[in-house]
Amino acid sequence: MISKNIYTIIMAGGIGSRFWPQSRQALPKQFVDILGAGNSLLEMTWNRAKKFSSLEDILILTNKAYEELVADHLEGVLTENILTEPSRNNTAPCIAYAAFKLYKKNPDAVMAILPSDQLILKEDVYYNKLSKAIDFAKENNALLTLGIHPTRPDTGYGYIHFAQDDNEVKKVLSFKEKPNLETAKQYIASGDYLWNAGIFIWKAKDAIDAFEKYAPDVYKLFKSGMEFYNTAQEEEFIKENYPKSPNISIDYAIMEKAENVYTVPADMGWSDLGTWASLWSVKDKDENENVVIAQENILLSNTKNSIISAHKEKLVVVDGLEDFIIVDKQDVLLIYPKTKEQEIKDVMKKLEQRNAHKYL
Amino acid sequence: MISKNIYTIIMAGGIGSRFWPQSRQALPKQFVDILGAGNSLLEMTWNRAKKFSSLEDILILTNKAYEELVADHLEGVLTENILTEPSRNNTAPCIAYAAFKLYKKNPDAVMAILPSDQLILKEDVYYNKLSKAIDFAKENNALLTLGIHPTRPDTGYGYIHFAQDDNEVKKVLSFKEKPNLETAKQYIASGDYLWNAGIFIWKAKDAIDAFEKYAPDVYKLFKSGMEFYNTAQEEEFIKENYPKSPNISIDYAIMEKAENVYTVPADMGWSDLGTWASLWSVKDKDENENVVIAQENILLSNTKNSIISAHKEKLVVVDGLEDFIIVDKQDVLLIYPKTKEQEIKDVMKKLEQRNAHKYL
Repeated sequence: MISKNIYTIIMAGGIGSRFWPQSRQALPKQFVDILGAGNSLLEMTWNRAKKFSSLEDILILTNKAYEELVADHLEGVLTENILTEPSRNNTAPCIAYAAFKLYKKNPDAVMAILPSDQLILKEDVYYNKLSKAIDFAKENNALLTLGIHPTRPDTGYGYIHFAQDDNEVKKVLSFKEKPNLETAKQYIASGDYLWNAGIFIWKAKDAIDAFEKYAPDVYKLFKSGMEFYNTAQEEEFIKENYPKSPNISIDYAIMEKAENVYTVPADMGWSDLGTWASLWSVKDKDENENVVIAQENILLSNTKNSIISAHKEKLVVVDGLEDFIIVDKQDVLLIYPKTKEQEIKDVMKKLEQRNAHKYL
Repeated sequence: MISKNIYTIIMAGGIGSRFWPQSRQALPKQFVDILGAGNSLLEMTWNRAKKFSSLEDILILTNKAYEELVADHLEGVLTENILTEPSRNNTAPCIAYAAFKLYKKNPDAVMAILPSDQLILKEDVYYNKLSKAIDFAKENNALLTLGIHPTRPDTGYGYIHFAQDDNEVKKVLSFKEKPNLETAKQYIASGDYLWNAGIFIWKAKDAIDAFEKYAPDVYKLFKSGMEFYNTAQEEEFIKENYPKSPNISIDYAIMEKAENVYTVPADMGWSDLGTWASLWSVKDKDENENVVIAQENILLSNTKNSIISAHKEKLVVVDGLEDFIIVDKQDVLLIYPKTKEQEIKDVMKKLEQRNAHKYL
């Protein structure tokens, strides 16, 4: 499946704040073995990427702070392929940087851009749909996404409104930002909407054209570095110029505006594991619908529909909890109703107000 | 207040199993700063003992396993005054050993026997009542206890039925073992009962006489060591003979049978801190009746009547718990309804069955 012009861009610079305290600023979600299965989400993404691109053609974009972590997690990664962002400016500048760099190296480059912190349970479907998208991107000036069939009216995702036709690659009519619950329900009832999983496929050239048209500030900034990409001066250029970019997402900068957007619906057992409830929903459960991540010693009684995560050697004894999240880390213990997990980010705000940054 | 013939015996060999997982076999309750106030219960007992006895006259009886812990906890303790029990045979042999040893040293010795794991909030009352008991024991062949006015129909304590009269030292009519709830309520309604706190005061000679009369096996065993006490051979004698003693409590061996038993009612802010609920009842509470032991960082919401204990630097975030015990130790996390705390010992049994001894 590996093809010469296919480059994989793994975006591994996020903080994963909705998964606190499992995900921490010092060790975000993508570096955590959240499933307790022996591999971090980043490692799993890397293993999938290797099916499409040779080692030299996989770039990891991450924050400067996580450079060593990435190197530690990814066996065989080429050091020069770990590109570090000196500042947090969201996804548009990150993708623009990669597009220019690859275009200079190979004007025919096709980029598959993958978040580093997602779970994909049906890998065969994923490979199949991603191949379809890559083939389409090769032949067309098209910006593609993989779209996920929504399973619930989630208000935390962006939605893709697509044209119903018989093609496997569907024309996108519009991108819809996080809807309210009523709207989300209508979207699902219509059958015309998919979740935007943040997986993008396009030629580097087509991305650059789109930046020029819809996000000229970003375009100009990264075009000005053309002479430095893939040279000894690249790092210096990025260090100085990257922070000057607008802080803007690729959805907002391009996807919501461009007219050549397409999607491949992919029923690939996807979860962004963005929240504890989403983790609970994908994991094996005991007879009382509890999810226990990794503990070897646990005693649960009168406890249902809960998710428990602690160090595997820690003994956890719980009686009488229903629909709870219990997360025990070295320095943080969280006991929170599963239905109120959106409030966990308020907990983090309170910690910031108290200057308790060490717990973030 | 220190008087030449007054010896204090601190019993520090217990396991404190009802306070698991704060109390562990390797570090029982008496060695723990359970209140988070900076001192272990043993240290507090030691500090009180020093008001009545000089350093040479305070004996610590503990299990062999805790010898070093005792030395670490008690500043100024004389090494030769830490007496180690080679086996766990309950309180009768422990007290018999001390009585014979002291009697040999000083036939007029008065012994004040103190559990090492109790809390006394009104120390002035304690000193006053203990002095009264000591004075009475000096002048009379009498076995005395301090009695606690019961504040609830607790079924976990022994009760003392005493004769109502105008004396400060009351004649005891009988000892009653742990009653059922109905009986406990009747005891409290009558006003004729006190809790047995396990604090005993008597002359060594009177104790020996009582052992001879009511527990002749124990008497004979420890009498046979008379020539060795306070010599270089004492340790060897104890090591060989102590385990031969019947496993029997002082209550059962003597107090329930003897006719010369007296009690001094003492309203001294006593708690045996035997359970989490008893700890909850003596600690300062927040506006929602929660007790937080030592944490510097805690975020509680919708949480009431609960008790939370964790390492002081651990951040604990809890939402939606009512009447719960939350105890976090390095290797154990317990989340349990406060009303079901008597079941915690069943948890320990389950751990034994699983051979998970490291958590006990």
